[in-house]
Amino acid sequence: MAAEGRSCRRLEAAAARAVLGAADTLLFDCDGVLWRGDAAVAGAPDALARLEAAGKRLCYVTNNSSRTRQAYADKLRRLGFPAAAPRQVFGSAYCAARYLRQALPPGAAAYVLGGAALSAELRAAGVPHLGPGPAALPGPGPADWAQAPLDPAVRAVLVGFDEHFAYAKLCQALRYLLRGGAACLLVGTNRDHRLPLEGGAAIPGTGCLVKAVEVAAEREAFIIGKPSRYIFDCVVSEFDIDPARTIMVGDRLDTDILMGNTCGLTTILTLTGVSTLEEVKSHQESDCPARRNLIPDYYVDSIADLLPALED
Amino acid sequence: MAAEGRSCRRLEAAAARAVLGAADTLLFDCDGVLWRGDAAVAGAPDALARLEAAGKRLCYVTNNSSRTRQAYADKLRRLGFPAAAPRQVFGSAYCAARYLRQALPPGAAAYVLGGAALSAELRAAGVPHLGPGPAALPGPGPADWAQAPLDPAVRAVLVGFDEHFAYAKLCQALRYLLRGGAACLLVGTNRDHRLPLEGGAAIPGTGCLVKAVEVAAEREAFIIGKPSRYIFDCVVSEFDIDPARTIMVGDRLDTDILMGNTCGLTTILTLTGVSTLEEVKSHQESDCPARRNLIPDYYVDSIADLLPALED
Repeated sequence: MAAEGRSCRRLEAAAARAVLGAADTLLFDCDGVLWRGDAAVAGAPDALARLEAAGKRLCYVTNNSSRTRQAYADKLRRLGFPAAAPRQVFGSAYCAARYLRQALPPGAAAYVLGGAALSAELRAAGVPHLGPGPAALPGPGPADWAQAPLDPAVRAVLVGFDEHFAYAKLCQALRYLLRGGAACLLVGTNRDHRLPLEGGAAIPGTGCLVKAVEVAAEREAFIIGKPSRYIFDCVVSEFDIDPARTIMVGDRLDTDILMGNTCGLTTILTLTGVSTLEEVKSHQESDCPARRNLIPDYYVDSIADLLPALED
Repeated sequence: MAAEGRSCRRLEAAAARAVLGAADTLLFDCDGVLWRGDAAVAGAPDALARLEAAGKRLCYVTNNSSRTRQAYADKLRRLGFPAAAPRQVFGSAYCAARYLRQALPPGAAAYVLGGAALSAELRAAGVPHLGPGPAALPGPGPADWAQAPLDPAVRAVLVGFDEHFAYAKLCQALRYLLRGGAACLLVGTNRDHRLPLEGGAAIPGTGCLVKAVEVAAEREAFIIGKPSRYIFDCVVSEFDIDPARTIMVGDRLDTDILMGNTCGLTTILTLTGVSTLEEVKSHQESDCPARRNLIPDYYVDSIADLLPALED
């Protein structure tokens, strides 16, 4: 749908029947769409079960790099969603591992700011790596820090969600990037500023860590997750996807909806998560052409609103 | 001097006599100007001694937040520069403490990402604070992190150089900023991307840490150090300064020279540090008006080049 045509209409049952009827694949963001924290959005498991029963292909596309594909499949099952194979899950940890497997020369390794899930996906993809876990500075002063051992095989710095992020790691990341120059890749799993928690609380997202490394290195990272189209390209390369018959369902305009619009998908905003209709309105009223890409084709209060269109 | 007039001429002896003769105050950046690491720039102590003997007021203006005023005075003495009183030194740690003393309501405290020097300057200024030193996450998961105790008195987050910077601190900083909203100040000592070390090595600068907090908080920090004019305003409020009779000498175009030009000072770039004549040339050739402010009035290979103008 052309950018000028996006009016962000509420997806009522009749329109929903037509929109869903024209699609063979639905891509779902997870947190804020299917569940919030550890509770399924009411009606969401039933809606997905009916979509699957109607012959739709369901995939899960998430920027969260702190879970493996398998962990997402397990959570879907635990919360009562239709059984999903790990290969239906496109998390930024898996997709980052996939990217590095293709982009790194044979034998090259990655220095990773990230956790156990990112490490597991890299291991599964056969990408040698080091870095996960706590790190300490190797001495009292800058001269010591600048002389910590570097692994000669490292040809990439990968930044994901890392609860052990520390100045010591930022230092090592910069040193690998200065040593390798343009031949050392700089990759970020995503740019999310925050991870919202229940009750209005939030913790810093991976975007903060990516930006810290970018500022030090004075270069821009290649981003895996939404709104980058790389994560959608991963879906396309593993399934037979026609963008014109694919729907992206998400709760964030700046990631889910922007990626969907950029990739030519039909986009549905669900209001159970981060973004609001007020934000949509402010994009609609803006003169900035780039902001037109943040407007979804449709919105629903919850994906449970799709249920009436799926009955009979 | 008007922006259009800045031609970045080499400051030869005759011109130097005129430029220095018209000035009563010189502001010096330190690292890359007076010294590199722990060695004085050859001839620099002699040049400063002669400037002082000629009746000039010398001040030291540095973005480094990891030393106190007293530590700078000690280092100047140790490296053979003319004796300086701590009050001649305007470091971003001291100036940040000064800012918070004025900006915080009575009894309010600051959450500080920074080291012992920043803490000492805050203590000297009577600003209650917490945060320096190592920090650990208060539990295994996000729900625990979002429930760590917050000090009810905190009304500011101050980000300086912090070798103990960690995700746990980023979390707390975000939580104070979310709790306080606009009533919680966000202050950064400076935006330097890197600290260059001898031999071409570098470690990440405070700018990386400030940016990480800004991305999480989705707001911009008030910056104390160059190129912000706040640090110059500190000099003005403590000495009787006439910008038209003041020279800023520095090695960085984007901090020292930009601040000097912005504040109406005469600016001299010295080539013993970070910036190069090639960078000056690229700014001169640019169509971007903002880049004109990065062009110094004069340059010298080293501040020892001022010596001939100071003889007899």
